[in-house]
Amino acid sequence: MKIAFIIFNDITWLDLVGIYDPITRLKHMGFINDLEWDICSYTNSVADHYGLSVNPTKIKTSLEAYDVIIVPGGYGTRTLVHDEGFINWLRTAEKSSYRISICTGSLLLGAAGFLQGKKATTHFSEYENLKPYCAQVSKERIVEDGNAITAGAVTSSIDLGLYLCNKWAGAEAAATIRARMDYKG
Amino acid sequence: MKIAFIIFNDITWLDLVGIYDPITRLKHMGFINDLEWDICSYTNSVADHYGLSVNPTKIKTSLEAYDVIIVPGGYGTRTLVHDEGFINWLRTAEKSSYRISICTGSLLLGAAGFLQGKKATTHFSEYENLKPYCAQVSKERIVEDGNAITAGAVTSSIDLGLYLCNKWAGAEAAATIRARMDYKG
Repeated sequence: MKIAFIIFNDITWLDLVGIYDPITRLKHMGFINDLEWDICSYTNSVADHYGLSVNPTKIKTSLEAYDVIIVPGGYGTRTLVHDEGFINWLRTAEKSSYRISICTGSLLLGAAGFLQGKKATTHFSEYENLKPYCAQVSKERIVEDGNAITAGAVTSSIDLGLYLCNKWAGAEAAATIRARMDYKG
Repeated sequence: MKIAFIIFNDITWLDLVGIYDPITRLKHMGFINDLEWDICSYTNSVADHYGLSVNPTKIKTSLEAYDVIIVPGGYGTRTLVHDEGFINWLRTAEKSSYRISICTGSLLLGAAGFLQGKKATTHFSEYENLKPYCAQVSKERIVEDGNAITAGAVTSSIDLGLYLCNKWAGAEAAATIRARMDYKG
């Protein structure tokens, strides 16, 4: 399984790292050995507004080789939903098995057309902005509808990561990873 | 107040980003306006073992100008405790008001001598390794003893961040930030 972690300017880093931590543990704790991932962006450099910048491992590379894309949120999503280049790049994931988002990352999945006819969620202050992109906005913390799995605000990223650990490697793997992370949520 | 977020190779990024998120919200949500921070390292590049690399904003810069240092954990700490250059660099924070750690970051504070005579904690699997550096190892999630504040494993980083929001800006600020992050822990 090959995962693309999508990053962009004005991202909320905890949206990314909250899910990155348990997902990468699936591999390095030996639960899924054929797991691979890249840190993918559409721009050469990626930073939030507060000084933290991360280096993408793939830049403007088509997403068609990935089984899974994971899209965090952040203030950058407000302008990216109108950025044709970025959205068309996201659409190269149209054959992926799962399109996954945290927080306002669902607005990006929505703008790419990946939530059409589906139930989805987002940051609790953005429910209205998600409506045009999907069939039904849910207030649940994690919403799975076919190949779209969306989560709520910021720290739900950790819950979603553990949810996916359970889905892909079973309850025991998820419980072991949760314990290692000492997660009480 | 000026904070140095310390990063190093083989860091656990969630240890950093879990506390970085609520602390930076103290400023951008308007609770503490004169808050500043840097991402400080002793090496030119900083990456974990799994592909995620972050750019320091200060490299080998003395830490004496900072009021607070925040030291995350990760496998890198196992070798760094014996790295004289790195530990001497950490010691340049000897006049700081607070030396703060998450997870095995406390081993680095310990190696720098910052936990002498104090109660402290670390990742639950590393209690034995912390013993030589401090007066008493605690199993609490967050331990404050004078200018040393240490937290337990990985996700305790978020709890510590909210603890500091409360300490530095009051209960209402911490509750508002917790709600914005939608944290259930």
